[in-house]
Parts: sequence; C-alpha cells; structure tokens
Amino acid sequence: MKLDKLVGMRFKEKPTDCVIESHTLMMRGGYMKDVAKGIYSQYTPLKRICKKIEAIIREEMDAIDGQEVLFPVALPASLWDESGRYESVGSELLRFTDRNGTKMLLGMTHEEAAVHLVRDYAQSYNCYPFMIYQIQTKFRDEARPRAGLIRVREFTMKDAYSFHTSQEDLERYYQICYNAYNRIFARAGIPDVVTVASDSGMMGGNISHEYMLLTPVGEDSIAICTECDYRANMEAAESIQENKKDAEEEPLTKVFTPDIHTIEEICDFLKSPLEKSCKAVVYQKNMSDDYVVIFIRGDLDVNETKVTNYLGEEIHPAVITEDCGLHAGYIGPVNLSVAGNYTVIYDKSLQDTNNLSCGANEEEYHYTGLCMERDVPDARYVDIAKITEGGICPKCGKKTITISRGIEVGNIFQLGTKYTKSMNMQYLDAEGNSHYPIMGCYGIGVGRLAASVCEAHHDEYGPIWPISIAPWQVHLCCLRSDDAQTKAYADRLYEELEKQQIEVIYDDRKARPGVMFSDADLLGVPIRLVVSPRNMSESVVELSTRDKKIQEKVAMEDVVSTVKNLIQDMMNAG
Amino acid sequence: MKLDKLVGMRFKEKPTDCVIESHTLMMRGGYMKDVAKGIYSQYTPLKRICKKIEAIIREEMDAIDGQEVLFPVALPASLWDESGRYESVGSELLRFTDRNGTKMLLGMTHEEAAVHLVRDYAQSYNCYPFMIYQIQTKFRDEARPRAGLIRVREFTMKDAYSFHTSQEDLERYYQICYNAYNRIFARAGIPDVVTVASDSGMMGGNISHEYMLLTPVGEDSIAICTECDYRANMEAAESIQENKKDAEEEPLTKVFTPDIHTIEEICDFLKSPLEKSCKAVVYQKNMSDDYVVIFIRGDLDVNETKVTNYLGEEIHPAVITEDCGLHAGYIGPVNLSVAGNYTVIYDKSLQDTNNLSCGANEEEYHYTGLCMERDVPDARYVDIAKITEGGICPKCGKKTITISRGIEVGNIFQLGTKYTKSMNMQYLDAEGNSHYPIMGCYGIGVGRLAASVCEAHHDEYGPIWPISIAPWQVHLCCLRSDDAQTKAYADRLYEELEKQQIEVIYDDRKARPGVMFSDADLLGVPIRLVVSPRNMSESVVELSTRDKKIQEKVAMEDVVSTVKNLIQDMMNAG
Repeated sequence: MKLDKLVGMRFKEKPTDCVIESHTLMMRGGYMKDVAKGIYSQYTPLKRICKKIEAIIREEMDAIDGQEVLFPVALPASLWDESGRYESVGSELLRFTDRNGTKMLLGMTHEEAAVHLVRDYAQSYNCYPFMIYQIQTKFRDEARPRAGLIRVREFTMKDAYSFHTSQEDLERYYQICYNAYNRIFARAGIPDVVTVASDSGMMGGNISHEYMLLTPVGEDSIAICTECDYRANMEAAESIQENKKDAEEEPLTKVFTPDIHTIEEICDFLKSPLEKSCKAVVYQKNMSDDYVVIFIRGDLDVNETKVTNYLGEEIHPAVITEDCGLHAGYIGPVNLSVAGNYTVIYDKSLQDTNNLSCGANEEEYHYTGLCMERDVPDARYVDIAKITEGGICPKCGKKTITISRGIEVGNIFQLGTKYTKSMNMQYLDAEGNSHYPIMGCYGIGVGRLAASVCEAHHDEYGPIWPISIAPWQVHLCCLRSDDAQTKAYADRLYEELEKQQIEVIYDDRKARPGVMFSDADLLGVPIRLVVSPRNMSESVVELSTRDKKIQEKVAMEDVVSTVKNLIQDMMNAG
Repeated sequence: MKLDKLVGMRFKEKPTDCVIESHTLMMRGGYMKDVAKGIYSQYTPLKRICKKIEAIIREEMDAIDGQEVLFPVALPASLWDESGRYESVGSELLRFTDRNGTKMLLGMTHEEAAVHLVRDYAQSYNCYPFMIYQIQTKFRDEARPRAGLIRVREFTMKDAYSFHTSQEDLERYYQICYNAYNRIFARAGIPDVVTVASDSGMMGGNISHEYMLLTPVGEDSIAICTECDYRANMEAAESIQENKKDAEEEPLTKVFTPDIHTIEEICDFLKSPLEKSCKAVVYQKNMSDDYVVIFIRGDLDVNETKVTNYLGEEIHPAVITEDCGLHAGYIGPVNLSVAGNYTVIYDKSLQDTNNLSCGANEEEYHYTGLCMERDVPDARYVDIAKITEGGICPKCGKKTITISRGIEVGNIFQLGTKYTKSMNMQYLDAEGNSHYPIMGCYGIGVGRLAASVCEAHHDEYGPIWPISIAPWQVHLCCLRSDDAQTKAYADRLYEELEKQQIEVIYDDRKARPGVMFSDADLLGVPIRLVVSPRNMSESVVELSTRDKKIQEKVAMEDVVSTVKNLIQDMMNAG
C-alpha cells in the first residue's frame, strides 16, 4: 500500500508516559493509540504484525493437532461459580450484570468455557486426547496497566486447553506443546526466549513453565543458576538457606529498646548482624481480615505468592489496629497474642537457629537469645522467603543464583483435574469406570509478543522487525517523486513487486529524504529500496536492510529477483 | 483432520428452542454450543467457516483500499458521551464500571472509536479519503436473542468507516463499497442477496442500504415493488395513500356509543368502512413520559420507527392513567385535551378526508362526519403509517407493493457529519479553512452471514456449504476401516490429498455407513469420497457432491486430479 494514505501519525517526541522502548517506538511509529488506561486501538502496521503472529501460532497449534474454536468474551457468572473462581479471583476479574440482571463477567482466561464446550462430547475415553484453542480478545482489569502492550487490560490471546486420560499422556503432550512454543518464539524472531519453572497461581495445578524474554525492562524477576540449568520465576523459586547455630545457647533476655521499631534498628542497637534476628511481617487474609503473622530471618524478604499458595487465600499487608493485640515494631514469636483467629508461619530460614533478637510483644522491649527449638518448640517451618542474588541453587546446591528480569511471553500449565472435578466433567474408560480428565493449558499474548519482539529488536530510530512478522517486507522510497521519470520507474517497480506477492509499503510523497527515512525507520520494515534521480542515472536501486547488515546498489533489472531471494533467505534464517 | 477426534457432538433430535433450519442444523451438526442466552461458543467447523468468510471480507475490503485496524471491545463511556450516544442508546448498550469506578461499555458499533483513532491524524485534506475497518467481537444486549446466530448478543462483525471531504466523494466511495458487498455475498454463496433502502436508526445519517437474503424465516419485512426496482425495509418505506373525499360533507355529529371501544367496533356499529374512520394510537416518550397522540386512518398501522425518527426520541406504548385527560376508546382530534406536555401527530392518510368517524374525547361518545380541513384546520400531516401489501409503490406509483421477509446480512450507511461534528474532528482544506469530514460506515456480521448461507443452502439432512466457505473441501469416508487393504489405501489417499493442499476431513471410524453418511451430511462438505472394499475391487472411489449434482465412480489413479479440478471448477463457479 501507499504510505501517504497510511492512517496514523509518526513523530519524534517521546511520549511522557512511556517507560520502555517498545512502548515509545510503537507510539512514535503510529502503531497504536490509547483509548483508556491499558486499552489500545491498533493502527494497520500493528494489526498486520499481530495477524502474522496469529498465523504462526495457528500453524504451530494445528501442527500439534489443535482444533481452533471460539469462546465468548462475555461469560455468565454461573459458569465461573462452578469452578469457584467467580468468588476466588480478585477485582482483576471484571464482573457486570446484563439488562436482565444476570451476573456476567469478561473472560480473562477460558478454562471454564473450555470444559463447558467439551464435557457433553468427551464422555468416552475414545475421544481423548484432544486439544482446543482460540485466539480471542480477553479482559483483565489490571490495577496498574503499564509499559504499553506489555501489561494491558484488553488483549488478544491464544489460549489452548488439552484433555487427557492420564498424567503420563498430559506430560507427553505438554512436552510437544513445550517444543511448539519454542518454534513459535523462534519464528517470531526471539529464539533466545528461556523457559522457567513458574508458580501456577490462580490457574491451579502444579507443574508450569513461563517463557521469558530476558531484558532489564521486564517486570518479572527470574532466578537463574550460572552453574546448572536451573531457572525459575522468583515467585516459584525455592529459597534455601544454610542455617547456622551458635555452639553456645544464650538465655532469652528481655531488653529495653525505646524508640526502636525496625529489625535494622534493633540489630544496629545490639551490634549483631541481621542474620541473627527474627523479623515479623504481618498480613491479613482478604476474605476474613484474619491476621497472618510471619516470622523470617531478618535479612530475608517474604515472597507473598508463596504465602498465598500456602494459605490457599489472597492476602494484603496488615492494618495493625489498637485492639488487635499486636505491637507494631515489637512483634516476636514468644508470648505472641492476637485477637480473633490468626495464623503464624515460620520461614525455613529460622529452623535450627539460635541466639536471635526479636520483638517481645510488649511496647519498647525486645528479646535477645531467642533459640527457636527451645523457645518456640511447636513451630513448623515452611518456605516463604524470596530467593536472593548469590543464594543457593535448589538444583545443584551451589551459591550461584543470579536474579534477572524478563517479560513473560507465554506460559504452559499442567492443570490436573481442578476444573474437570469442580465442573463435573467425566468420561468412561474401556472398563466402564468414571474418571475426571486431566487438563493442560497453554497461553500466548499476541500483542505482548509483538512488543517483546520490538524490545529485543530495535535501535534508537525504531523497531527492527524480523521479516516473519514485519508489517511489510519491503519499504520502497521514491526520492524526488516530482521527477517524472523517477516516479514512473518507482511506480512500475511497486507494481512489479506487488505482482510477485511481495508486501510493499510505497512512499512516493513529496517529502524530504530525511522525513522519508525516519518514517521508514519507525515502520521497521526489513528491506528498504530507494529509487532516486541519482540512482536512475546509474541504472541502480539502493537496497539496504533495516538491521544495516546489507547496504548495496542493485542493477535495475535485478531488483525484483534480488529482493525475492533476499526475502527467502531472511525467512529461512528466521 | 480426522473426524474421530473432531470435538463436538452430532445428533438427530431437533433441539426444542430451534425455530429456523440453520439454527437446528448448526446445533445438530456440532457447530456451536450456547453458553448463555444469545451467546455461543463455536466448534471447529463453524470457526473454519467464519475464518473463510473473514478472509473473503478482508480481500474485498483491502481491494477497495481499506486499512485493517483493531478497536477495543471495552470502551470508556466518555467516548460515547462525546457523540451523545452513551445517553441516547437504550439498554442494548451494555454499560458497566471498572475496578476504579470508571464508566465503560461494550462496543456494539465503533463510530466513536473510529473518529477517536483518526481525528489527530487526519487534520489535512491531503489525508482524505481513507477507509479503516476491523473484524472484532461486539456485544449488543438484545432483549430477545433468537434464531441461533441470526440474532445474538455477542458476535463477530466487520465494521468499516470511511472519511471524505465532500458528499460527492462519499457517494463515489459508497458505490464502490456497495459493489464490494455484492462481491462478498456472491463469493460467500448467496449472490441473490438484494439491497433495500433502509432506515438508519440510531446510526444517524440519511441514506443507507441493507443487504437482505429473502427468506420466509427472516425477521425483517421488506416492501418490494413487482413492477419497478423499488425495494425498502418496512421501517423506511414511504406509505402513500389515495385520499378520497366525499362530495358532500356531513356535519360533525356526536353519537352515543356505549360499550364501544375499538375502531373496528365503531365502524361495525355505524356500518361504515374502516377507511372512513380516524383511529387514535397513543405512545409516551421514553425520557419524559410525555404523551404522543397519533391519528391515522382506521385501516392502517403506525410504523413506530417513523414516529421515533420524526420525534427524534424513543417511545413506548402509553399507559393511560385516570388523570391524564385521555379517554381510552374514545380519543379523537376534536376537543382533545391531555394533561401536561403532549404531541399530536396526524398521518398523511387523513389529509383531505371527510365524513370520518372518530372518538369524541368523552366516555361512550363518538363523532361522525369528521371533516379534517373543517374540524382540525391546524393539523399538519406526516408519514408515520406502515406500507401495506398491495399498496402504492413510492417510485412507480402503481399498486404493486408486496411484503417479503428477509435476513439482513449487511448494511451500509452514509453518516454525514453526525460523529465528526459531535466529536469535533476537523480538517483544513487547501485554503486553510476548517471542515468536518463526512463519514460512511459499512457492516457485516460474520456469524449471521454463515447462518444465512446455511439458511439458503441446506436440505433436511444438513447444510450444503458452498466450497468458498465450507469447513473442509473434501469429506473422505473409509467404509470398513477394519479391512486392512481398504484402510491402507484410504490413509494413502488422505495423505496425498493433504499434500496437495486440499482440506480433508477424514472419517476412518469403525462406524456403520449410515452413521458416517449422516455425519457427512451434517458437516455439509461439498465433495465426498467413499473408499470401500467393494469400490477397491473395482479399483474406483465413489465421488459425490453434497448438492447431489455429481455422483460417479472415479478410477483410483484419477481421484486426486479429479478432485483438484472439481474444487477449481466449484471455486470458479462460486
């Protein structure tokens, strides 16, 4: 198509709310426009990129026997009541009522809809295994949408659901899907995506993986071992500590500590290291407001996801009221008393430790000489600490953990029977016995993938799209389109390229070369052709690639064939 | 793909809530499943049909310089406040609030979003004309969803918006789009769709057309002239009456008419024809509840859409209260008195008429001898009557109007400046003067089109899909797949056809031929191949078409080439 009618503005200034490059460049290049917080309209270049990504996803899903279906965006609450998620999911689930007062919601994931679609059909073991998928708009009412297409409220997503009669069969298919995902990301231009073990959160189930594009601007933190192949999302990474015990146990001693409130202050006051302290962190359960008091070694932080998973309930930082029994700044495990129902959790970092300082549950007093086994004999220890840089690798045991940042571009989950059981989907085996099928689910956000590719491939002037998902394959510039001969040749070249099924964006505007080239940079099309009076006089066309690897003059008669071959080479290389 | 793993049930029984054939067959054939009232999930066969329809639409929209974009499903109410539609559209617009209490809505049409996307960009006349379109999920909270995919609440729609600097240019492009629509419907297999002039309703603007598939099960009524090319939606069709006046005018005479309440009863009582009466029909305005009293010739009916358009406000049938001043059954134009604000409308059928009977605005009394010009001298007449079978054609003037039923499969509107003006989108012309661009909009519902094609092409056993949108091109049945030799040949044929890029659904189940054939009928695939031991012994494959036009035996070695040629012929014929 011709650039002069391409809808959308391209501009130089960085929009003030853009914190990452993909967002900046996609705004500056006329890819999208925000309609509301975290909700965008897409202009043609982005829509074309997304369609190509969707085509790649479809091919790979069909190749592993996926059947494309379509679930509704608007779902009845009754469906999510069956799985229990209508109640359990927080306010990111957008709930509304229709004109008849029926409770509805906007789908943010479609496990319930998938089970609903197949539970009448798949009543015999003969039907299994199978996988259904859709590419559809989803809505997640994020509290803090950010970073352009990385974290939005409305998005297009491919979500797939597989159904199996055994855990072994799920694992077999899970591996097939794992490989298909690697092919998808490689074809989309980011083969260096890594997989990490992840927490499956509200999806249920146990084993799951996230596909991460490692980049400093990513919003996820990933623990990576530099010695072995261990990689896990911070949320899922096990924290292992070497718990050292002093040979000689001190007595539990109450110390007057006026105006000392934080664990850092008390350690400073006592001139003892943070590792020799027991810190209290207090939350409340979302549903009941019951207190959850967590004790953890003073130098470590609480991983809230682990707490949530342990409790099976959502939590929020506590509001310490006057009559709750807790003394903020002086909370400790000995003589703890809390009004109402409450839960106490001890992190594994405290197991077998002694001579710690901690709060004395009394205003202006702390203890020293806390010995866990002696003073808190009933404590049971669980892992709720965040893994740390330089920490111990849960796999190889070396102190080789590094923390990297990444963007999650996809995820795969082994769901087990969470949904089939709660929604009563059953099949009969060959012997006539009833079972709940075992499910897997597999997601990729289309827009986020586009933005991630931009994040991985850009320079200061614009995105450098891989040819597999580029909005066009060739960007043809006609410099001095007021020169009749030049214009006539460029027009013919445009037609000839289009006739060869090559996707061309043609810039024949009466604009300065600087404007044309900066627009071309922003559109990021892999191959650029420049027709100009000077090139005409040499009977050549300038060919360059957006990644600057190729810059050459091609004889006019060879242009079309050269471009065709180059496209082929680029496609094969990708 | 193989049929034995195709997700979805096929069955014989007609579901009780199915009133039209396309709905019945698409439920019986495993095309869709209802998730809520008017909200369906799509199984793979329907999803494949819809993808093919979408591909046809994309090709035709791109061919008329359309640029594909994507608007959000969830829109901020503030955007619809700009056009005034947040208030003016009824409860079919689904409104909700997000987690921050911001008012939002689910898009049922995207004029506002289209203007929002381009109003910063298109500030110079140079940018014009252009057309943007999307294919996206929409939601319309219908009071009475019915007839399967014909009237749903959630649906996929192609909506296009064009922008112009003059009415002439809009009309030029409108014609181009008109032709593109004809090509789309022809390619999808319903070339016999007709266009009718329509009322543009809540879209605003004046000139608009609907594309109608004429069928007795359609929910729209269309006035068609059998003598000329006049065709209009009932809502938009002008009602023309020959108003006859008696030579001798009777005096206005009050008549005691106890227990007589309807216009039929009074005409019966007076032994005078319905055409010599003046009927009252009373509505109330939705916003204010003000009364709207309509007088119309006794034999005609009120067209509520015309009333709404005339008033510029939505109405509902009136509730006649004791103190409103109206006497139900006795309402007439002389001495009419209504409490509060009210509007009186006289239909054109009353103009220049005399000697009518009508209510006397007094319990148990009617008038005879009503002469409009003499007794209601201030009346102004507008057309608010429904056109009738055998009525006068507004174009050729003959009494040749017939009323047919149809399904609206698409529509095109000339919107004028309704949205650009209200949303303050302006451009500068070559002289630097500001103007509001002129818009057109163009819609096609994808699912409704699929159902309409099924309605047009089916028999009692299932749909007969045109090859252009069929879920697969070839349905391969292997009878007696327990016979190793037969099965081996069928497998090879399946592979060979797929290798040739032919879309095959392959049934190699150990099922009775009757089951296989009735499943094939329900899937409606145009070409059927049957491999069986008997055919093997003759070295042939049975080839038949779903429309029964072809039924022949093809030599094994010719099957692939025969099928390829047949597909090509079918595609060209479509």
